[in-house]
Amino acid sequence: MKLKVALCQMNVVDNKEKNIKKAINMIKKAKSEGSDIAILPEMFNCPYENEKFKEYAEFSDNSYTLKSIAETSKNENIHVLAGSIPEKKINAETGKEKIYNTSFLFDDNGEILGCHRKMHLFDIDVKDKIYFKESDTLNSGNSVTVIDTKSKIGKIGIGICYDIRFLELSRIMSLEGAKILIYPGAFNLTTGPAHWELLFRSRALDNQVFTIGVSPSLNEFNSYHAYGHSIVCNPWGKIVKKASYEEELLITEINLKEVDKVREELPILKNRRNDIYELKNLD
Amino acid sequence: MKLKVALCQMNVVDNKEKNIKKAINMIKKAKSEGSDIAILPEMFNCPYENEKFKEYAEFSDNSYTLKSIAETSKNENIHVLAGSIPEKKINAETGKEKIYNTSFLFDDNGEILGCHRKMHLFDIDVKDKIYFKESDTLNSGNSVTVIDTKSKIGKIGIGICYDIRFLELSRIMSLEGAKILIYPGAFNLTTGPAHWELLFRSRALDNQVFTIGVSPSLNEFNSYHAYGHSIVCNPWGKIVKKASYEEELLITEINLKEVDKVREELPILKNRRNDIYELKNLD
Repeated sequence: MKLKVALCQMNVVDNKEKNIKKAINMIKKAKSEGSDIAILPEMFNCPYENEKFKEYAEFSDNSYTLKSIAETSKNENIHVLAGSIPEKKINAETGKEKIYNTSFLFDDNGEILGCHRKMHLFDIDVKDKIYFKESDTLNSGNSVTVIDTKSKIGKIGIGICYDIRFLELSRIMSLEGAKILIYPGAFNLTTGPAHWELLFRSRALDNQVFTIGVSPSLNEFNSYHAYGHSIVCNPWGKIVKKASYEEELLITEINLKEVDKVREELPILKNRRNDIYELKNLD
Repeated sequence: MKLKVALCQMNVVDNKEKNIKKAINMIKKAKSEGSDIAILPEMFNCPYENEKFKEYAEFSDNSYTLKSIAETSKNENIHVLAGSIPEKKINAETGKEKIYNTSFLFDDNGEILGCHRKMHLFDIDVKDKIYFKESDTLNSGNSVTVIDTKSKIGKIGIGICYDIRFLELSRIMSLEGAKILIYPGAFNLTTGPAHWELLFRSRALDNQVFTIGVSPSLNEFNSYHAYGHSIVCNPWGKIVKKASYEEELLITEINLKEVDKVREELPILKNRRNDIYELKNLD
């Protein structure tokens, strides 16, 4: 049950072609070092800006980005979680274009196993103070995503960035059998130092799973400054490996048997009081 | 909305009389320094041992411990959360005695406002390896506990020790209006260093509330070695104040307006996807 996971903390620039090339090179490097899965960061092909999302967005059935990643995954024989990209879709009812923040999972033959569309959007509207609605630009996904890779990687739960702040989602994914929760994310220089580590450690500890966060590296030329610090935590809530601000390919081995071991020693999931509270996936 | 909270990290010994005296002295000291509420640790009147629970247990309507605390609370005009005590009850059906791990909350006139009975018991049974069932000695409470103090302290959510490991309970208490979650607890020297801080910080951050943990101090003469490190965390997930291993009266001021401020800046509770998942209190 030993796995090698590769976190591609890439420097994302304002050039789709260059971003894709960087991603491909990192995936190849990951494979050459024996990795079973390579994970790209949130918005790995596009700077993190509302205006850029529109400019860079692609339809999934005609996406240069996804085709490139699929090809690499197939040629290299490696699973790839393609962080996220701005995905265009046409709303069947209104005929209008919608943009989603979407993460596609490829098996080691370049086939798409499934995808997660970011389901929690950061919306805030405090009268006379702050107005910022991510939902003005992006649409939210409406599904909890647990994908069975049918490989030794097992079931993966996927969330994107802000999704990690919602304990319900992590619990549901874990109860549905995911032993690894992966959140591509781009925290900023305020929330990063305050919360990034804490969230990955606590989601791991509470659900007794591995958690993985993959961020773009800090690029001072972009208008949005990502925190970096891509991270792997184990089911005991301990950090296994962590990057810093800079671009880095972070490779580490994890053993999924640790999930079973920790759950035997400290049977949190079994000791839940299902007679007193109930958490349901309505999806 | 400013409150002074006093965490009584007392050294619990194998002598009920002495423990109660120590508690009373700490409550008096807390009041003399302007505290609005004094909080005692889990099992403050009794060493943390299954056999001792039976020996020390009292009926709540005839409890020397509770009477003493009530009197002090009334004389000193201070709210007291009486950590927990082993509480005896007769099962109406079987006529047998049951023991609960129970936390009583007193208003500043010595009246009991309510109580919480530890609802998650640590039960583990791994064939040929480990057998330890807290439920062999203790009975579990069957209620989520949020108590309105009808004072400036507002609504308090109460859990005991292992209860903190269950994210559902903290979420329900917060959604029911508690802005302070208090967990008297006695982690040990393995789980304490690994998880105590992480749990209090993450429950605070996830629910955007204050969390308070009060432990007995480390007493090397007891068979169970408590971790101490009583703690207060704010709604941003930051530690406000923390004790070490030794006996200490830890007093600090908190401002409940911080709860509203953090929830305005980062509207996690509002941005929850109630259309996708549902957490219900079945109680």
